[in-house]
Amino acid sequence: MTENRIPEQLTISWLQQAYASGIVTPEEVLREICRRAGRLEKKHIWITPPSMTWIQAYLDHLPVRDAGRYPLWGIPFAIKDNIDLAGIPTTAACPAYAYMPDDSATVVKKLIAAGAIPVGKTNLDQFATGLVGTRSPYGEVENAYVPERISGGSSSGSAVSVASGLAAFALGTDTAGSGRVPAMLNNLIGYKPPLGAWSTKGVVPACAGLDCVTVFTHSLDEARLIDRIARGFDKDCCWSRNISHLPDAMPRVILLPQDEPEFFGDFAEEFRKKWNEAVSRLNHLGAAVLYVDITLFQRAARLLYEGAFVAERWADLGDFVQNHPNEVFPVTRKILESGGRAEYTAARLFADWHELQTYRHQSAVMMEHAVLVLPTAGGTYTREQVRKDPVRTNSKMGLYTNHCNLLDLAAVAVPQDSVDRKDPFGITFFSLHHEEHLLCAAAKAFLKAEPAAEGKHIGGNKS
Amino acid sequence: MTENRIPEQLTISWLQQAYASGIVTPEEVLREICRRAGRLEKKHIWITPPSMTWIQAYLDHLPVRDAGRYPLWGIPFAIKDNIDLAGIPTTAACPAYAYMPDDSATVVKKLIAAGAIPVGKTNLDQFATGLVGTRSPYGEVENAYVPERISGGSSSGSAVSVASGLAAFALGTDTAGSGRVPAMLNNLIGYKPPLGAWSTKGVVPACAGLDCVTVFTHSLDEARLIDRIARGFDKDCCWSRNISHLPDAMPRVILLPQDEPEFFGDFAEEFRKKWNEAVSRLNHLGAAVLYVDITLFQRAARLLYEGAFVAERWADLGDFVQNHPNEVFPVTRKILESGGRAEYTAARLFADWHELQTYRHQSAVMMEHAVLVLPTAGGTYTREQVRKDPVRTNSKMGLYTNHCNLLDLAAVAVPQDSVDRKDPFGITFFSLHHEEHLLCAAAKAFLKAEPAAEGKHIGGNKS
Repeated sequence: MTENRIPEQLTISWLQQAYASGIVTPEEVLREICRRAGRLEKKHIWITPPSMTWIQAYLDHLPVRDAGRYPLWGIPFAIKDNIDLAGIPTTAACPAYAYMPDDSATVVKKLIAAGAIPVGKTNLDQFATGLVGTRSPYGEVENAYVPERISGGSSSGSAVSVASGLAAFALGTDTAGSGRVPAMLNNLIGYKPPLGAWSTKGVVPACAGLDCVTVFTHSLDEARLIDRIARGFDKDCCWSRNISHLPDAMPRVILLPQDEPEFFGDFAEEFRKKWNEAVSRLNHLGAAVLYVDITLFQRAARLLYEGAFVAERWADLGDFVQNHPNEVFPVTRKILESGGRAEYTAARLFADWHELQTYRHQSAVMMEHAVLVLPTAGGTYTREQVRKDPVRTNSKMGLYTNHCNLLDLAAVAVPQDSVDRKDPFGITFFSLHHEEHLLCAAAKAFLKAEPAAEGKHIGGNKS
Repeated sequence: MTENRIPEQLTISWLQQAYASGIVTPEEVLREICRRAGRLEKKHIWITPPSMTWIQAYLDHLPVRDAGRYPLWGIPFAIKDNIDLAGIPTTAACPAYAYMPDDSATVVKKLIAAGAIPVGKTNLDQFATGLVGTRSPYGEVENAYVPERISGGSSSGSAVSVASGLAAFALGTDTAGSGRVPAMLNNLIGYKPPLGAWSTKGVVPACAGLDCVTVFTHSLDEARLIDRIARGFDKDCCWSRNISHLPDAMPRVILLPQDEPEFFGDFAEEFRKKWNEAVSRLNHLGAAVLYVDITLFQRAARLLYEGAFVAERWADLGDFVQNHPNEVFPVTRKILESGGRAEYTAARLFADWHELQTYRHQSAVMMEHAVLVLPTAGGTYTREQVRKDPVRTNSKMGLYTNHCNLLDLAAVAVPQDSVDRKDPFGITFFSLHHEEHLLCAAAKAFLKAEPAAEGKHIGGNKS
């Protein structure tokens, strides 16, 4: 049977080798993905699930294999359902909001042009507002490994699709941590390029000025392969910036928090232990380690939801919510509506923005030639816990992610233990937007230093 | 008598040569400036006028002349009174707002360290809010050449001090055109570096995110000398950016408006003629000329005062105005208070900001490797006319300036006819913030191409 030849998890490197040696064809891989998706239906990964009825057209148009011209030839990928794929509805996890795009998002087009094959549109926290993966009328996305726990959000379905062997990589979006928290909880790489480095044309805005498209993969090298294809100035995207990626170089300094980070929830002890193990590994990468006061990052993070910045979502979605109050997920509506509060005046937003600018400036001074490392999240919850206390639990999940885009940082979330399926934990490397080369070198060194990393990685770091 | 040896207008180059050859000493120049200031008192140029009582200390501390170490040795300069000079009150033209700074603004410190001598604090449109030069309880600043006309604002006193031979250069600030309109109306160079290229530490905020410190000089070379000294990243200024100035190069393209710009007021005909002369000169500089639709610049300009952006002034000054309603200049109060209107919500500001981003993006695409040229202003008014209709006349003056900082452009305003004292008119060159080298090369070529420019310039283009 074909499926026996196809590993449980799909990596770009395995697929490339398998196609080159003729072990499998893209069609066999895509059919196997459709079968697996059927078996995993109850995980609520998809809004438009994999189906040969529409995937076949991509197979039919696949050019002759040419690894040079089509570096992603035959590679299946999943797309968060707030990113347009031509001819498939975009819902942002809100059926009443759904529209049919004529055109794919710029990033999707680039990946397809490189030979990649879209396999489906993934479930998400509605309007990409959430970090839990349970805020969707399409069902709570189950964690890939511990079904009773949250998958993380808002790019929940994308992360779980990769972890569950339904795609070799998946596109997410990240405004406040949506490309990093689900990476950690499903033990994946979550690469979040700087603001504007990847086009956001064809993406439903959450906070238009802060939204990034991201990628989930099994290895850092595969995330970077996607980055090389997806990156680039888009003259049709007003948020686009020309940000180049210099050759990798280890940072002079790794910055770590001087006080032990807060860990929370039922698994706090386990996470604290793993963080301490990560810190000890970070101390042996060859870069100087400096323990710093991270108050400025925490203050910047609080500005995102405890001040006038929350009005950015309301600016783009307020009209829709006001016209469809009962068709918006209740907790999502509550959060979006808070952006319309009378206290959030334009003057208050300027005051918050000026305060943010001081943090941007301080972080630029502190982080020059350095990378900052924090836990990706300080804990996790069961879906049941989130259902009981949806706002507080969600807010906790963003403790170490919310500052990132406000401060114009790049980030990559990496697993602390690449094969942990019990309590996946991870750390995130942050750099200034023009210093991703430091970020990547440091993350790579960390992954290589994993005890007995050899043989444990699933196709990781081999390509 | 000393004063007979000192020319009517002071240029850096004349002073440098005179000091080198021993024709005059800095003390003689400063004493002459104090005498002139006394004679011109009724022009309302100053808030703290030149006086040897406090200037003497700077003379006493002047090091031994060394043109290499102190490129501005003995050069007198004026400072707009919203920029701190240690030990002299900063008023922002509002006596109730005045405070005594212990420290000078970063830019002022750099100039003094280069040997320059501050001669006084200049009058301005209160809180740098205005483009006319009449909105001050310290009196209406008279135009240097046509006293019944406006001087332009808000950096009114700074421009007139240079044009009137009271300083060799002067610092202004520019949020919406305050460093360019007065340059034109007093026939000077007005150099406006990109946002953050010069520190704004020690400057009273108008719109903190849009404020620039600028310089008025008699020649472009002298503006650039000041720029080289004033520029640089300031770790103590949260708006500071590291923006370097590449070697001059002519732009590939000069962009001009495809429709004739609007000229207004009693002198519209004269201005239109001068603009057409400037256009014809621009067509012979050796760069391609492209006539473009400037709607996007006009739309961006309107966002500054006809939308929620006006709340930025209110964010910083609202508390003061509410506590001192009767101590704020009436028209200024009206404008500042408009920033507190209920319709200006945070969501509205985000909507305006997202709209602005589309213009930023379009201008970045349109202006790459190019410079845009517009009239600096489309007309002027008598002070009497402004008194009768203060809001509309002021708004007209910003027709070709308001877009600049919102779009993150650099600009230099230059005279169309360097010795015109009857109807001073000028044009402004705009570039993207990282392409000032194009701006400078184009402006220089334009100035050189002035009919019979040789011998007409006052010390201009000689240094």
